[in-house]
Amino acid sequence: MLTAWHLPVTPFVTVHDNHLVVTLWLAGNDLPQRVVIRYEEDNEELMMPMKRQSAAPARGVVAWRGRISLSQGQPRRRYSFKLLWADRQQWFSPRGMGAFPPPRLETFAFDYPDTGPAWVADQVFYQIFPDRFSRSHQRKPEADGTYWHHSAGTETRHKAWHEPLTHEAGGSTFYGGDLDGITEKLPYLQKLGVTALYLNPVFTAPSVHKYDTQNYREVDTAFGGNNALLRLRQQTRNKGMRLILDGVFNHTGDTHPWFDRYQQHSQGACHNADSPWREWYHFDESGQALNWLGYSSLPKLDYRSAGVVDEIYRGENSVVRHWLQPPWNMDGWRLDVVQMLGEAGGAKNNQQHIAGITQASCEANPEAFVFGEHFGDARQWLHNDAEHSAMNYRGFSFPVWGFLANTDISYDPNHIDAETCAAWLEDYRTGLSHQQQLRMFNQLDSHDTARFKTLLGKDVARLPLAVIWLFCWPGVPCIYYGDEVGLDGSNDPMCRKPFPWDKAQQGLELLSLYQRIAVIRRKSKALRHGGCQVVFAAGDVLVFARVWQKERVLVALNRGEKTTCTLPFSALLAEKSWQCLEGSGVIDGMVLALPGVSATVWQGK
Amino acid sequence: MLTAWHLPVTPFVTVHDNHLVVTLWLAGNDLPQRVVIRYEEDNEELMMPMKRQSAAPARGVVAWRGRISLSQGQPRRRYSFKLLWADRQQWFSPRGMGAFPPPRLETFAFDYPDTGPAWVADQVFYQIFPDRFSRSHQRKPEADGTYWHHSAGTETRHKAWHEPLTHEAGGSTFYGGDLDGITEKLPYLQKLGVTALYLNPVFTAPSVHKYDTQNYREVDTAFGGNNALLRLRQQTRNKGMRLILDGVFNHTGDTHPWFDRYQQHSQGACHNADSPWREWYHFDESGQALNWLGYSSLPKLDYRSAGVVDEIYRGENSVVRHWLQPPWNMDGWRLDVVQMLGEAGGAKNNQQHIAGITQASCEANPEAFVFGEHFGDARQWLHNDAEHSAMNYRGFSFPVWGFLANTDISYDPNHIDAETCAAWLEDYRTGLSHQQQLRMFNQLDSHDTARFKTLLGKDVARLPLAVIWLFCWPGVPCIYYGDEVGLDGSNDPMCRKPFPWDKAQQGLELLSLYQRIAVIRRKSKALRHGGCQVVFAAGDVLVFARVWQKERVLVALNRGEKTTCTLPFSALLAEKSWQCLEGSGVIDGMVLALPGVSATVWQGK
Repeated sequence: MLTAWHLPVTPFVTVHDNHLVVTLWLAGNDLPQRVVIRYEEDNEELMMPMKRQSAAPARGVVAWRGRISLSQGQPRRRYSFKLLWADRQQWFSPRGMGAFPPPRLETFAFDYPDTGPAWVADQVFYQIFPDRFSRSHQRKPEADGTYWHHSAGTETRHKAWHEPLTHEAGGSTFYGGDLDGITEKLPYLQKLGVTALYLNPVFTAPSVHKYDTQNYREVDTAFGGNNALLRLRQQTRNKGMRLILDGVFNHTGDTHPWFDRYQQHSQGACHNADSPWREWYHFDESGQALNWLGYSSLPKLDYRSAGVVDEIYRGENSVVRHWLQPPWNMDGWRLDVVQMLGEAGGAKNNQQHIAGITQASCEANPEAFVFGEHFGDARQWLHNDAEHSAMNYRGFSFPVWGFLANTDISYDPNHIDAETCAAWLEDYRTGLSHQQQLRMFNQLDSHDTARFKTLLGKDVARLPLAVIWLFCWPGVPCIYYGDEVGLDGSNDPMCRKPFPWDKAQQGLELLSLYQRIAVIRRKSKALRHGGCQVVFAAGDVLVFARVWQKERVLVALNRGEKTTCTLPFSALLAEKSWQCLEGSGVIDGMVLALPGVSATVWQGK
Repeated sequence: MLTAWHLPVTPFVTVHDNHLVVTLWLAGNDLPQRVVIRYEEDNEELMMPMKRQSAAPARGVVAWRGRISLSQGQPRRRYSFKLLWADRQQWFSPRGMGAFPPPRLETFAFDYPDTGPAWVADQVFYQIFPDRFSRSHQRKPEADGTYWHHSAGTETRHKAWHEPLTHEAGGSTFYGGDLDGITEKLPYLQKLGVTALYLNPVFTAPSVHKYDTQNYREVDTAFGGNNALLRLRQQTRNKGMRLILDGVFNHTGDTHPWFDRYQQHSQGACHNADSPWREWYHFDESGQALNWLGYSSLPKLDYRSAGVVDEIYRGENSVVRHWLQPPWNMDGWRLDVVQMLGEAGGAKNNQQHIAGITQASCEANPEAFVFGEHFGDARQWLHNDAEHSAMNYRGFSFPVWGFLANTDISYDPNHIDAETCAAWLEDYRTGLSHQQQLRMFNQLDSHDTARFKTLLGKDVARLPLAVIWLFCWPGVPCIYYGDEVGLDGSNDPMCRKPFPWDKAQQGLELLSLYQRIAVIRRKSKALRHGGCQVVFAAGDVLVFARVWQKERVLVALNRGEKTTCTLPFSALLAEKSWQCLEGSGVIDGMVLALPGVSATVWQGK
């Protein structure tokens, strides 16, 4: 019997004298005779014997230590451990103990120097669909006169804030939320614990969602125009808040002058083979433009064209750079359908262009945060550092959905137990560096999914578990506007209801939970920067620990009935006494008594 | 109980009417109600319901079929299967049945169109270290007068072919093998079954191994110069044989005129800060050039320099292009220490430059085959298509070493059983497309390792198992010169002994085995292009099947004592009768009787 502990974080990893000092803890009655750290220097695998330490980090636990030079090599420091006996060997990696060398992309990884945006892990994000969050007090009814939308085949619909949203004319229904409305609500957001905003698209476009861009350099007048964005930027900056825009660079709208479907005789590419922008789109042999997923309102940009590449990201005043520079000074981009962007009507050379967007962003603003929308597996983009992070549907939202709401993104049944949920979560984050894990963009839902509350259905009592999970799991939490007051809604358009500012319509207990857990996260370096280890997963119960230096936070989630469980011995948790920060579970030694449908957070002392 | 079968090859995958028609076989008493194929179009995950087929492919086996459009999307067609019951789901991928969606890079993958070199999978490669393979008959003693080597601190040593190699002066010991010597031996190689040659470096360089290039555009006079290479090219071409060179582009030798360590007052970069090639290398603050792994004779090229990039691969007459074009017409490059090549003395932007080398190669010769040396994990390069293939130490040689020779590349003990060996082999190839798997460059050993025969030591009776494995496992087999006649030797320099042309010194039984198994491979489409499934792995016995249309080849390896094993039911092998092609195992139904330390190959009828 042999157990090993290591996380790519202090106290297991420290930087000293231009070396990475790496420690492995072992316990059991079958200890190896030698331990070797396998690491890389410029992708070359190297071996360095580790030294057994005389001091025991905990009773019965042996520490081995090795040093990796930082004077050469690429910044992603990958390593694993080779344990040797007289006639055999074992390998220890984030996957646990294995009989053969772990795949390179499943080894421990620590970025030093970390070239990504360091501020991200400390944030609490809030996603806003601008038309539906807040209508500014000074807004005049005339401001709603600028709406127009051709796509739905219907007139635009203007609704008063209190009028219910319906399924009809989703893209053409306007409530009149605007950027000044957001600025007015900054005190509310601050009280909630929010420190950073991610806005759905704000540039001029006919639809309410504005993914059909008509002008990349103007904020839609319905949202208050450029000046309203400047005001929001100034006010967020004054409050120390970050602000991220939605970059829709896979396609434009069909009313963009580059394309201009509705002007037969314009310079636009749609009807004009001699258009200066003809090569900016991909036309098939019959002269039809290729659209994104068949939506005729969304013609796909063709990144074979140097003009597109220059205008979107490469050029000195590209769209990507423009908004990250003064006076706009945005903090980064969320990139829409990032995985499909590319050349010749498809995704050819996709990662090269995404990397170009990220590079241009960081040149314009060295602190820029660039992350992609990925419903699928984002790891290849992250392994290649094409972007800093990704919306973490696949590595956070969907495992949580399966465990708590028993559904998946296709809304097929998906009853998974805690073992499967933990295996899924762990599988996904394994290949990412510690720093990348801390920047993953975690959400329970978004403008593109049903609200998690609605997914829970009769199991709505599990909602607080998800909220606590969101704030305590590695990654940066993002609240989708309204989730914090219990707003519900099924898929688009129903997940985009106007925010219920009437307190009588708000779930104030839920709001209070959000506020409390945001404070707990803000006060805890372990929750924001710590390593993570699942210490128990069986049936209805999942328990994990966050680890930073001597700080320990233990989180126990129980989706089922009241229960008791005994954690296996963990050197990470040894010799701690515990203070309950949230919830009403009880810990006694390694025995947890957990109320039915509960989440409890303890801090080790 | 549920079992599933699928391989990304006919009969499970066929192309029809611009669609990929994909079939899944299922058997058991817990069949799903629905099956959905999850695939990608331009990296977007899509779902398509499959249809249950009325015809049973084998007794008790149900087939489900789906169609994926090939009219859009990138050529690597990735897919997996979602099996649905009333309240749960399972996923089927190359990893088997799983409870959550498989990682993208662990799904089935079929390249269509396949843009890689299609000829590779049909070859039997032979690796030649030119100084040690064959000294041409017409070679005159004067030809040996051109040797010089400064690095060893000793004079060069000239040896007669029959003189034993010793450990001293490895890089400065010359036997006088040459390219005309190879040309003379082509009939021998053809009889062996060899169809393609990979030569260790042949360009002018002081050492015997010639990894310290002095001139990228001249074949070393000691090997016969450019004309000898032309003669070899003509003769191999006449015989329909392929010819690959070793591209050493990470570093030059220190006698290269660009560097010129031994000429204080030359234009070379070493001593001359104003050298036109100063930026082609990376000098530290003290003016020292950065060397590869500290070897002062191997200064590392700096790919930040546009001059290096143009000269090596990007320019119209770059080194990479030069040798692939007429009159040289080489068939590709093996790239030395490919993973370390890069910028600023390190591996920065490594994959971008490797992809550039591959692209330039294919522009110069559309059939070019470019593969890298990788002792470590090559998968990230292959996933990104930075190169066509890789030397498959990690995914073939080392698992075989562990199972048969109980050692690893560090020569640490590594006793692994068949389960572990199979898990290792399967883990590695899982993420590669079917076509990539067929091009992996499999060897038992090379000029950089001990000979496998020597690694086996007292277990030398296991050598035939390895030979049969090499020719039957997915990938292209490469014989390291002399292995086929039982040449032995520990690490460099002892693995580079002169070829024993005296038949009395040759292992003729072993040679005969090589010849027989090469014929079996040549006659079997399943061995060259088929899918592969491990059907049994326990203790000392590993059994796998190769599958192509209706053709089946079954290979049973038993490293231990005489034994009997019963294969579990496999729809892949159902209703077959078997003809033994090699070895003396006996198959009766699904029961295998295997002699001690044996390898048996059967073909299904």
